[in-house]
Amino acid sequence: MYIEKIQFPQDVKALSWSELDILASEVRQVLLKKLSRKGGHIGPNLGMVEATIALHYVFNSPEDKIVYDVSHQSYVHKMLTGRVDGFMDPERYDMVSGYSNPKESEHDFFTIGHTSTSISLACGLAKGRDLLGGKENVIAVIGDGSLSGGEALEGLSNVGELGSNMIIVVNDNDMSIAENHGGLYKNLRLLRETKGKAECNLFRAMGLDYIYVEEGNSVKALVEAFRKVKDAVSPVVVHIVTQKGKGFKPAEMYKEQWHYGMPFDEKTGEPKFQSSGEDYGSLTANFLLERMKSNPGLVVITAGTPTVMGFTKERRDMAGGQFVDVGIAEEHAVALASGIAARGGKPVWGVYSTFVQRTYDQLSQDLCINRNAAVIPVFCASVYGMNDVTHLGIFDIPLISNIPNMVYLAPTCKEEYFAMMSWAITQKEHPVAVRVPGLQVESRSDEIFDTDYSVLNRFRMSRAGENVAVIAVGNFYSLGESVCDKLCTERGINATLINPRYLTGLDTDMLDGLKEKHSVVITLEDGVLDGGFGEKVSRYYGGSDMKVLNFGLRKEFADRYVASELMASNHLTDVQIVQDVMAIYK
Amino acid sequence: MYIEKIQFPQDVKALSWSELDILASEVRQVLLKKLSRKGGHIGPNLGMVEATIALHYVFNSPEDKIVYDVSHQSYVHKMLTGRVDGFMDPERYDMVSGYSNPKESEHDFFTIGHTSTSISLACGLAKGRDLLGGKENVIAVIGDGSLSGGEALEGLSNVGELGSNMIIVVNDNDMSIAENHGGLYKNLRLLRETKGKAECNLFRAMGLDYIYVEEGNSVKALVEAFRKVKDAVSPVVVHIVTQKGKGFKPAEMYKEQWHYGMPFDEKTGEPKFQSSGEDYGSLTANFLLERMKSNPGLVVITAGTPTVMGFTKERRDMAGGQFVDVGIAEEHAVALASGIAARGGKPVWGVYSTFVQRTYDQLSQDLCINRNAAVIPVFCASVYGMNDVTHLGIFDIPLISNIPNMVYLAPTCKEEYFAMMSWAITQKEHPVAVRVPGLQVESRSDEIFDTDYSVLNRFRMSRAGENVAVIAVGNFYSLGESVCDKLCTERGINATLINPRYLTGLDTDMLDGLKEKHSVVITLEDGVLDGGFGEKVSRYYGGSDMKVLNFGLRKEFADRYVASELMASNHLTDVQIVQDVMAIYK
Repeated sequence: MYIEKIQFPQDVKALSWSELDILASEVRQVLLKKLSRKGGHIGPNLGMVEATIALHYVFNSPEDKIVYDVSHQSYVHKMLTGRVDGFMDPERYDMVSGYSNPKESEHDFFTIGHTSTSISLACGLAKGRDLLGGKENVIAVIGDGSLSGGEALEGLSNVGELGSNMIIVVNDNDMSIAENHGGLYKNLRLLRETKGKAECNLFRAMGLDYIYVEEGNSVKALVEAFRKVKDAVSPVVVHIVTQKGKGFKPAEMYKEQWHYGMPFDEKTGEPKFQSSGEDYGSLTANFLLERMKSNPGLVVITAGTPTVMGFTKERRDMAGGQFVDVGIAEEHAVALASGIAARGGKPVWGVYSTFVQRTYDQLSQDLCINRNAAVIPVFCASVYGMNDVTHLGIFDIPLISNIPNMVYLAPTCKEEYFAMMSWAITQKEHPVAVRVPGLQVESRSDEIFDTDYSVLNRFRMSRAGENVAVIAVGNFYSLGESVCDKLCTERGINATLINPRYLTGLDTDMLDGLKEKHSVVITLEDGVLDGGFGEKVSRYYGGSDMKVLNFGLRKEFADRYVASELMASNHLTDVQIVQDVMAIYK
Repeated sequence: MYIEKIQFPQDVKALSWSELDILASEVRQVLLKKLSRKGGHIGPNLGMVEATIALHYVFNSPEDKIVYDVSHQSYVHKMLTGRVDGFMDPERYDMVSGYSNPKESEHDFFTIGHTSTSISLACGLAKGRDLLGGKENVIAVIGDGSLSGGEALEGLSNVGELGSNMIIVVNDNDMSIAENHGGLYKNLRLLRETKGKAECNLFRAMGLDYIYVEEGNSVKALVEAFRKVKDAVSPVVVHIVTQKGKGFKPAEMYKEQWHYGMPFDEKTGEPKFQSSGEDYGSLTANFLLERMKSNPGLVVITAGTPTVMGFTKERRDMAGGQFVDVGIAEEHAVALASGIAARGGKPVWGVYSTFVQRTYDQLSQDLCINRNAAVIPVFCASVYGMNDVTHLGIFDIPLISNIPNMVYLAPTCKEEYFAMMSWAITQKEHPVAVRVPGLQVESRSDEIFDTDYSVLNRFRMSRAGENVAVIAVGNFYSLGESVCDKLCTERGINATLINPRYLTGLDTDMLDGLKEKHSVVITLEDGVLDGGFGEKVSRYYGGSDMKVLNFGLRKEFADRYVASELMASNHLTDVQIVQDVMAIYK
């Protein structure tokens, strides 16, 4: 196999045309074998095989610098830059991350994972080069789906002013994660239909030069195109048309399902593990679809990730005009929601914790200053969520809960989640975010939950005890139960257990009341401590005799951690918490 | 005068063409009289007189809904919608805010102040209308300068999918606050030069219909254009060419200076008050210009507000390629800075506190995960900064300081600010933000400040005392001094005074050391308490016997407040603080 011999990009350059084609085919085999065992971004990488080979054939990485948007499509790049073992040797599968990573290789320039950043980051590399007198090529590789994001569009316009070398490869497979949404995609279609010849051209309108490559899965066609733009003295877009999932029939046919996937049968594409039981996405979608029938103003919004809330193609069709995918454009999503609410509708924007942080200003200005009653369920907000450093779901409490007028609710289980959602989508007073409680669906069907949350910041005391009070947020409520049980059985302390429910304010009456019989209050939250919920409790009691301990995650960018280890290193096991409590309990 | 009789938009519709022209001239007189006395956004409103009259002549506000971007150009709209007294009667000048405001009038739909939001907000109004079966026109009015912002570009693309009525009036005066930057402005120029006929058209490339109005300061031409698009069944851009500052010679000639101004002589344009003494903008610009000479990689970045860091046209010219204005595109600015730093350059992005919040995700992902050593001075971060609800400078500590890897420094005075900046622009280890200490330049020239901040989170004890310790952040350090003085003279307490310097971490050695001789620690910060600095100190001491009080601002969107009153209502006078301390001091 040729691929085993590729240790550096120079090795690619030594191959003939026919050998390059064989290499492409080998790369696909290796990809499929690893991805069928480990899962990952399947469609995006299968589509980029030839383009990546051609980039390394023409340019001289790492002197020339290639920046991949999101970098979920950089697996082939990794194979060609000294990391092929991470794809061929099952023992070493984990040596490479799923995204570009400067710690792995000098051929990676940024740790990237969020969308629409490549053009701006690469623009910085180019500007730095110009200031310091460098001569290298700077290349941004961005998919059509990422173009809808504001940062990418800002970048496109600004590159138009750079006046020096920068090459933007637009990898157009006519797909985002799901289908594309946004008027700009009509222009991409026009460009494809006219083989790049249409006068009306988004990229030229942004002040950029432009060339079109129809055969984006032909190494030779791509090499010719890249040779044309190499060392260009002004910014140029190379618009290449590729096939997402190329070379693996199921992925070619069902592009959305095969964007990212778990392990599967390499021949048939059948998933190896069937997910069983409930998930919050489907539950949420079914709940909203049911409510839509009687509420024509209820509308579900996604920013390019429809299945985060369970809106598969079938459910999207059922929702019709009551479902809006704005493409990867989170800022627009929030402002859109604010406008819909202002007009009397009821928008629900479902979003991953890691992506809600793309909208602080819109949450604050467009939504919360205006007190428009949009609803925002926040998914995968947990130490048990995605564990790549670029996709952590542990920063949303500081981000959201310190914005005035926002109501951020933290349900502890399925039943409480839907009780809160039911209230949120009927009330008209507050912007409401709801922290979906973890990844596993936990049921507490024997408990009764409030149906009205309009009197804000009322905590719920579920066990009245004394001496020690445990305030356990959202899906850490079970941990709180466990701590209370341990305190009781092992230390004879009948602790009070509180479900705070609200992350955006304190129940000062209840906190004051605790002073009577308690000397220690602890808080447990599934997120970073800095700027979070627990600190507010500490501040409140600061001038009193109450001892307070905040449990949660320390402020750090943990990467590909094992959740149980990270929990333990943050003193988040019930055993550790009880020990810490006893150390200050008198 | 006609203007006195305009109580509702209907009154505009009753006028003849010649009367409308007279009205326009009266509006300008009234505007100039008020603005010469009170200051405000001069150029933008003078340019929009005819367009606003024409909008109200053709459309039926508030049934038809007009959303103004930034809304700094909505003064004329306010005059024509029942609020003319707020412009004509000096006694009532303050009854209208400088931005659109639903509390003032049913003709305003959002409280707006940040840029690039109008299209997305209006898109929400249109979507809500479609869901609920409404028929009204929805109009977004956006200046060319605001188009460079990501949220606006996301909005443009998404409107292209709406498939129903929405009208986007692009008010093109060929200016942002300063000159425009970005490749898209080449397209706007091409459109102006071809009278809208160029085939390559940004708006059409976004999937929108388009018409061009050359005479954007002719009521008649505008009325004709707006009539054409009224009740349009698909989204359309009306590109109107206006003259910024129209009708006032100084504002026509010096557009940047007259974008926003303080009171001036109505005839000559001479400012009524000469600013005297130093300001942090000019000091920063001169400092950086000096350093640029010996450091070719040092580059100053602004997102459309060059003078926040004192970069007037003259200084921009001096900096040459070492100054980059990316237009109003804050997200791109941060990613650009990260890329420049990654390539070995030293980017310095100066930004207002209120606008840095547009970049949380870029600070976290593009910059801090990558630990690139960009420098971000944050201006007007204070209760004494801008006091419009949309421009508050009190949320940056929670926003910035809870991001891992970031170093956020809070100097107390000019000398410390430049000591920190000198370190920041030479070190290569950390992304560093510096909270410029207040609006007034305070000097402590007799003190000596550290020149090296690379050992992180080392607080500085400036007065060693006992019993009570005062940790006073940044420009509240003087308040801390005053509190210590009062504690000494009035209560006989020789308090310890600490300048923490770092907002992103605690000096746990010093905090532990305080336990020996102190029973009370207080923190003072010029920002909201929630998620801020003081809460971290409270958390740290939570399990100990130390009493802690955090002083700062409560979480709220205060609007057009009097700073001294807001301070007092938050217990932020030295007298109140001493009282609060004594209430818990034993």
